Amino acid sequence: MRRCYFDHVATNPLHPEVLEAMMPYFKDNFGNPLSVYDLGMMARDAIEKARQQVADLVHAKPPTVVFTSSGAEANNFALRGIAFAMQNKGNHVIVSKVEHHSILNAARFLEKSGFVVTYLPVDKNGIVDPDTVKKSINKETILISVTHASSEIGTIEPIREIAGIAKAQGIVLHADGVATCGNIPVDVKELGVDLLSMAAHQFYGPKGAGVLYVREGLRIAPLIYGGIQEGGRRAGTENVPAIVGMGKAAEIAAREMPARMEHCRQLRDALIGGVLKTPNVYLTGHHELRLPHHASFVVEFIEGEAMLLMLSVKGILSASGSACSSRALKSSPVLLSLGIPSALAQGSIVFSLGMDNSMDDINYFLEEFPQVVKKLRDMSPFAKGWGSGGEGDQCYTGG
Amino acid sequence: MRRCYFDHVATNPLHPEVLEAMMPYFKDNFGNPLSVYDLGMMARDAIEKARQQVADLVHAKPPTVVFTSSGAEANNFALRGIAFAMQNKGNHVIVSKVEHHSILNAARFLEKSGFVVTYLPVDKNGIVDPDTVKKSINKETILISVTHASSEIGTIEPIREIAGIAKAQGIVLHADGVATCGNIPVDVKELGVDLLSMAAHQFYGPKGAGVLYVREGLRIAPLIYGGIQEGGRRAGTENVPAIVGMGKAAEIAAREMPARMEHCRQLRDALIGGVLKTPNVYLTGHHELRLPHHASFVVEFIEGEAMLLMLSVKGILSASGSACSSRALKSSPVLLSLGIPSALAQGSIVFSLGMDNSMDDINYFLEEFPQVVKKLRDMSPFAKGWGSGGEGDQCYTGG
Repeated sequence: MRRCYFDHVATNPLHPEVLEAMMPYFKDNFGNPLSVYDLGMMARDAIEKARQQVADLVHAKPPTVVFTSSGAEANNFALRGIAFAMQNKGNHVIVSKVEHHSILNAARFLEKSGFVVTYLPVDKNGIVDPDTVKKSINKETILISVTHASSEIGTIEPIREIAGIAKAQGIVLHADGVATCGNIPVDVKELGVDLLSMAAHQFYGPKGAGVLYVREGLRIAPLIYGGIQEGGRRAGTENVPAIVGMGKAAEIAAREMPARMEHCRQLRDALIGGVLKTPNVYLTGHHELRLPHHASFVVEFIEGEAMLLMLSVKGILSASGSACSSRALKSSPVLLSLGIPSALAQGSIVFSLGMDNSMDDINYFLEEFPQVVKKLRDMSPFAKGWGSGGEGDQCYTGG
Repeated sequence: MRRCYFDHVATNPLHPEVLEAMMPYFKDNFGNPLSVYDLGMMARDAIEKARQQVADLVHAKPPTVVFTSSGAEANNFALRGIAFAMQNKGNHVIVSKVEHHSILNAARFLEKSGFVVTYLPVDKNGIVDPDTVKKSINKETILISVTHASSEIGTIEPIREIAGIAKAQGIVLHADGVATCGNIPVDVKELGVDLLSMAAHQFYGPKGAGVLYVREGLRIAPLIYGGIQEGGRRAGTENVPAIVGMGKAAEIAAREMPARMEHCRQLRDALIGGVLKTPNVYLTGHHELRLPHHASFVVEFIEGEAMLLMLSVKGILSASGSACSSRALKSSPVLLSLGIPSALAQGSIVFSLGMDNSMDDINYFLEEFPQVVKKLRDMSPFAKGWGSGGEGDQCYTGG
């Protein structure tokens, strides 16, 4: 059976060159980077090479790259680290409603710790309006965190405009770049961000490696205290092989990005065009301002989970939302924030493409998809009386 | 040239079986454990198997095992997670002075956050007196954290006795088991701990995997918020290969522990006996209650760093203290807490043994060691007038 892995925002297979780069650090070069002898020095040099590679990917300087264990850790580090370091300046934090759980739940922790959090609304395409950001700022505001792109709906946010507003008022701006870094061009200076999160496994690097970019001169409290690793900003023995892998993946991503984007965009456009031929299926997120490898929909009268499982039987692997919430079985707060009714949000499905996908995969999927939808609608009590799916039956006109 | 890796508390080489177990998860089984389809299920099953293996190592139940990215993360998670979860109950935390930096610096963070921390003194062998613990408790005390063994001086602490005191007063007890778990028998119920930190790379497992054991029913706030991973206690896409490796390393450690301990103890005793023949060299830590693979000393009139470097030229790889502080060039607070004078503490050197070491390694080292010490003392202004090193010249009589 054909297998179509359409879940690249959940995680990616390792690039073979990445694994190759990592292997020596699982074997002879196993030293602790803090050790003073040769073995330690080799590990240290390997980490500094990776730091340069990641810095190059986002056009930053190496000392601004702080390695973490994941994008989620980088996001928590950013929010909690800035909130703690700047608590004497103010107690107000702004995040958007389309953030990843690691931002939203870290923000809720800040609320329990005495901070006030504003959750920015978005429009029906998931776009944060910079004007709304501006209006949400008060004299207590110390931090704004907006995702560079949502991995659930693919929408790319106007970070540059928001950065202009933040900078003018002397407020720190964090962008969650987990879905963008390594996938589309990211330039920290052009974006104007103070902090940016990344995750290696989003661009064919290993799990267990993330980065928080921290602008030069910006003070941040550690999330993990201890030794002097990462300039005292993130303690714990470095995961050398994973860091080396992240560096290599960044180097390859920088090199292959135009080809990857073009490949994925072609497949994605064919996928979106094909899927929307099925009635009562709506694209979620912005039509143009979206990740090139990302296509997300809500399918009326159907539960996303059921759709996922039936597609997976056909070898088509996709997600019903963020992987971090895919087993939580709740309506996605991101979809609700777009104004999508709760019942419809249950029919969420996300396809994210990669270099291992081909147009044949897309064609195979587009043959199977309408059948799966029909079968599920035939079984659905919600679809009763809805008939054969003519235009007039639509009960949702957003998206 | 012979290479003697005597720095197993800094990090360990991977056991070949561990790497073999990890490999499929770098290749075909790359799925995200939260994905609902087969690839996700395989990753999920692999993590649960590892959870069982780690649980077995410390005689715990699998749901009590929370995977982290390192021992340092586990230590921060324990201190900050309990402090936050129990802040309404009290604001006093007790730690010992021989804790790892990840405990001491997390404790300092708690102080900045409004908690009061008592730093327990130790005796000249680094032992925490349970009576001192008892006397330090007040009605605000919510947490006691004492290391199971110090990786700097090897001393094993009377955790069971301290646990009895903590339990009687309803206070949570955390033990840093990074140096012990996988190296000596650890039974969480027998020890009576509520929380226990572990790190895979301390027992031939990979870097990038740690565990916090959390007793059933104990509420702890996450350090990393986000998705539903690890029962909502630790967010972020799981580092599947590293977790699988930690499980395998735990399984092997449980199986091979008696042989490993016996092997290391023999080498260690020979090493200690040989080293102490050089005058004005003192064992640090307890003579009997110490890790079987651990030998630590202070060498008078010499800087540890210089000794390290000269030994490394001979292929003998050791440490001057905790790897996390080895490049900080400060007197170790752990050594100072034993009453060792600051100048003498500068001459700290730590040898930690492993399965890759042989008695030939020890003999080779014992030939080289006195020569290195002599050479350095000949160069040292501090040793001036100290003469030929007779007994009468000793200026330190502790240890």
